[in-house]
Formats: sequence, C-alpha cells, structure tokens
Amino acid sequence: MTGTSSTEDAIVEMLTSYHELNGGHVDELETTPSPLLLMQYIAKNRPFVLRGGATNWPATSLWDPAYLAMKMGNSNVKVAITPSGNADSPVRNSTDGRVYFTKPLEIEEPFDDFLTQIRQQEVEETSSTEVKYSQAQDDNLRGEYSQLYPDVPEDVRWATDCLGAPDAVNVWIGNGRSTTALHKDNYENIYCQIRGKKRFVLLPSVETPCVNIRFLPQAIYTRLRGSNSSLALSPESPSEDIPWPVWDPDRPGEEQTRFSRLSIPLHVELGPGDMLYLPALWYHKVSQECLEDRISVSVNYWYDMSFAGSLYATNAFITNISKLSNE
Amino acid sequence: MTGTSSTEDAIVEMLTSYHELNGGHVDELETTPSPLLLMQYIAKNRPFVLRGGATNWPATSLWDPAYLAMKMGNSNVKVAITPSGNADSPVRNSTDGRVYFTKPLEIEEPFDDFLTQIRQQEVEETSSTEVKYSQAQDDNLRGEYSQLYPDVPEDVRWATDCLGAPDAVNVWIGNGRSTTALHKDNYENIYCQIRGKKRFVLLPSVETPCVNIRFLPQAIYTRLRGSNSSLALSPESPSEDIPWPVWDPDRPGEEQTRFSRLSIPLHVELGPGDMLYLPALWYHKVSQECLEDRISVSVNYWYDMSFAGSLYATNAFITNISKLSNE
Ligand SMILES: O=C(O)CCC(=O)C(=O)O
Ligand SMILES: O=C(O)CCC(=O)C(=O)O
Repeated sequence: MTGTSSTEDAIVEMLTSYHELNGGHVDELETTPSPLLLMQYIAKNRPFVLRGGATNWPATSLWDPAYLAMKMGNSNVKVAITPSGNADSPVRNSTDGRVYFTKPLEIEEPFDDFLTQIRQQEVEETSSTEVKYSQAQDDNLRGEYSQLYPDVPEDVRWATDCLGAPDAVNVWIGNGRSTTALHKDNYENIYCQIRGKKRFVLLPSVETPCVNIRFLPQAIYTRLRGSNSSLALSPESPSEDIPWPVWDPDRPGEEQTRFSRLSIPLHVELGPGDMLYLPALWYHKVSQECLEDRISVSVNYWYDMSFAGSLYATNAFITNISKLSNE
Repeated sequence: MTGTSSTEDAIVEMLTSYHELNGGHVDELETTPSPLLLMQYIAKNRPFVLRGGATNWPATSLWDPAYLAMKMGNSNVKVAITPSGNADSPVRNSTDGRVYFTKPLEIEEPFDDFLTQIRQQEVEETSSTEVKYSQAQDDNLRGEYSQLYPDVPEDVRWATDCLGAPDAVNVWIGNGRSTTALHKDNYENIYCQIRGKKRFVLLPSVETPCVNIRFLPQAIYTRLRGSNSSLALSPESPSEDIPWPVWDPDRPGEEQTRFSRLSIPLHVELGPGDMLYLPALWYHKVSQECLEDRISVSVNYWYDMSFAGSLYATNAFITNISKLSNE
C-alpha cells in the first residue's frame, strides 16, 4: 500500500513534486512569442520575461515627467494614499489588535500636483509623509489617462491573438515608497515597464498552502473630513471577510504556515521596456525603484483567464484543503 | 469565516464547481484545428471530436480485411487473450476472493490466423470462446505493423506543430467482444477510428475522487504450457501493487465512493474517419462495435504530455486527498 498518509503529507508531496517538475526560475524569451508559445505558457501556468519587448513603444521614450505633465495637465486622477505605501494590504489595527485587509484612502487630484509630490518625496531623506500611488486598476489608461493611451499599443498583438481583446489596460504611476502586497488576480497579465524599475516576487498558484490565507475583516484608511490629521484605519461595518494571504515572502519567519518553508519565490526585475507574462492565479508582490526621473511608470494589460478547465476549480480546492490543514 | 469545513466538503465543492464551469459535453469542431486551438484545449485539459478528420487517409478506404490480410500475411503479431475481452482490468480472483489488476495472456501468432478468428467470433451467437485483441500499445504501427504505416500520416500535423513528434503510433484491431477498462494515461492522445465504431466513456482528471482508486496486487492470465486448458488468473509474486480505478461508470452502483454520484461521464462514439482529442490524465473506458466487415480498427498517436505546470502535481494531490477521504 502506497500513497500519502495524511493531508499534510499530500500537500508536502504536491509542493515538492511541483518544484521538481518546474524548477525555480523564470524563462527569458529571446524573441516576441507566437500566440502558440504564449498559449503553451498559459497551459503550464508559468511566467516568462521578454526583455525589451516594449522598447519600441512611443511611451518608453516619450513618458518623462515633463511630457506626462504636458499631456495630462491638471486633469483629475484617482490617487491612493496610505501611511507607508501599503495599498490593499493586511494591516494590524493598533486599537483592537486585529489584522484587517486595508484599502487606501482614495482621492481625486490634479495630475500635475500628484506628479510633483511623488517626485519630490522620492528625494526626501525620511519617509515621514504619506505615500501616493496612482494605481486605480480600473482600465484607467483608457479612462482618466486616455490622453496617454495613443503612446502604447492598443493591445499586445500576440496576447490578443491568443486570448481575445484585453479586459483592462492600466497605468501605474508612483515612486519607490509604494509596494503592492502579495495577492493574486483572476487575470492573465501582460505587465510592461515604462520608466523606473519594478521588482516582482512571484509564487506559483499551487503554493497557496504556503501563503497563509486568512479571512480578514475589511478596513479603509480615512481622514477626518477637511482635516490635515494623519490617516486612521477605520474598520468597515457591516464588512464581509475576504480571503487574503498574510505571509510575506520577504519576512518568511512571520505569519508562516507549516508549508511556507517549501515556497520557492521567484524574483523578476523589470527595467524600462521589459515585459512580464504573469500567469493567472500566481501570487505576486510588487515593489519599485525610480531612476533619474524619479518616477516609476508601468502599463499592464489584463486578459480574461479561462475558468473552464481544471485550474480554477483545483486551485480553490488546494486553498480549501490547506486552510483545513493550517487550522 | 467562510471556506469548506471538511475534506469531503472541499471535494464536493471542487467537483460541483468544475462541472458548473465546464458543462457536460464534448465539443465538436467544424474544421481541422490550428495548433493554437489544440493548445487551448490542452490548456483546459478538455477533449474534442473532429468528425471525418481521418476520412481522407488511405487507411480509411483501404483497410478492409482482404487488404489487411494481403499486406500483413502470416507475419507474427502480438495478441492479447482474455476470457471475456477484459484486457488490463480489475478482476476478482475466485480462488482467494481478492481483486487483482489482471493483464492478458500475450502470445504471438500469424496475423492472418488472428484476423480470421476475430472475424469468425464476431458472428458467433454465444461468447463461449476467449477473446483476442491486438492492442500492444508499444508503437506497433511503426513496429510489427509497419507494412500498414504508409497508409496513415506519419503524424497528425496540427498536433505535431503543437507538441513535437509523437512518442508512439499504435494500431488497435479487435472485435465487439473487447472492452478496455477505465484507466488514464500520461499522454495527450489523438485517437482515430478507421473501421467499425468505438465508444468512449470519458471522465475529467479532476474526477479521480469518483473512480475509487485502489492499490491492487497484479495478476496475469496464464495457461498450462502447451495445454488447451482455459485461462487461469495467476497472482504475480513478488508483485508491486498498482493504483487503479475500480469504479465502472457503466455500473455506477458497484464499488462506488461517496463521490461517484458527482461524476458526469461524457460519451463519445467514433465512426470510421472520426478523430478524438483525448486529454492527458482523463479516465477513459473504451468499447467497440463492428460494421459489415466484422473488425474494429483504430490508430492512435500518443504525444508527450507536459509534466511541467501544475496539472500533473495537482492531479496526484487530488488523488492522494481523495484516497484519504475514501478510506
Ligand atoms: O505594479 C504594481 O504595483 C502591482 C501590479 C499588480 O498587482 C498587477 O498588475 O496585478
Ligand atoms: O481502443 C482501446 O481499446 C483503448 C484505447 C486507449 O485506451 C488509448 O488510446 O489510450
């Protein structure tokens, strides 16, 4: 009689065999992939990097701060504000000691003001001030940033030929203070760096037992209306708990599960003009660094993932089983 | 707090959501798929049928019994012999009451003798005699049947463009008495019907909790050397137990697990010239029916499956968890 003798064994075996079969690296393609090659990566649910894939886009040479300010002027954009650059992340509330999934304060402000502030903050010695990040993730490059949309391709041809038209085209503008906490999305993601650098920590979807999914109550950063007071975490009520990973691969000794030690995080750094295929359901944590022009700018195309097939249903299954095993 | 509260719940939820997301049918393609379309089905791990995909092959018009006998003559071929057409299947041993994974008696005999016998048996009223099936699954169309290989394409172009050259090209020759028991293979399978009909019962790989995987000791049908005695089941010793599904979707009330009722078997019938893409790791049970010429002949191309990605590792995980839950 063989087979694993406990749920824990089965999870360990799955993670070990996944890593044996896949290795711990991200492929780098030499040339633009065909739609078929992209589909092969989608089938494997594995990422790749295409260095220089966006080098020839007008945006890559045009989008310096002066050009962005000229194109956008003082038109209003949505800006996320957090105490320390931690939009959409688990935060422990000092008042009640509980961990909340905490959304940023979202404001609208003139683009040129926003741009000046993030560039100014980038050269400040201390991080005393709050952090702003334009990261609306609501198709904003075809919405409030539409003046800039002509500078990038409407879509990524080889991805559209494979997956149909993108569901959203987003632009992300910030400075080195912002970090996007570990999370996953139900999208196939073509992520393109335009200015500055982005650093991704990537975990395959099967590593859901490692990331300590917890059902967190929700909160939002607020400020007393019209005041200059600092941001306060406000629990929402009524609030629906949402499942969220509380393990941070950069602080592996905290909030870990018994499986976290089996995670093999992959690290990818994108410079200007580089592209990343980030597969649906992969956990990713994203931080950024500015170069001389003191901004980080990225554009990403979200394509619908396929819910047909077994990936989605089995991923939910692994999540449920590992939750039971971690309890 | 949400999420499933037991392993059993998690399995039920996975099967239910898989079926909601995928529906209970097999797609029928109108035209030859592109390599990209095949890859989309591989990515989903879902089958499709291509009616008439092999109609224009020389084999489809040429391979009547007279032609086969003329080409193959009395050259030796491997033939599997079983009491009732049940090659590679779980069989209860009357002597010790245990269920064994039972392999057929394998002999070599002149092709023309074999062909005469299976065609003769096809018109017999009773099934008193043993059943023969040429089903070596060892690349035999490029081996002992190589005289026939020029009558089919070397490979299936759209599959090879997607997956590389096939690993094996097999021919299957038998009559309506043979049934291949439910099992799965680590191959992407392009299955082509040439003469007669084949009926597939297909279960998606996620249905492994439904099929009652048991670790079975192995046996083989034997006959006393040189004798005409009937076949006897001989347990092998030493024997390594092998995992094998003991549930039969055509007898759903026997040997079921608590999850078998959630299985949604898919049924596909192939006639002469029809093709089936049978995805890696899908369970399949295959039976056959002869038309006027009293033979069933099929050709299949086995392409390597990708062990990279998550399909293989997560499938083993589901198998392990469901084994624990069914114990
Ligand atoms: O660029 C970032 O800060 C986060 C990007 C991200 O999470 C995404 O593209 O899904
Ligand atoms: O044709 C048959 O009897 C069985 C075919 C089969 O199991 C296969 O092609 O993998």
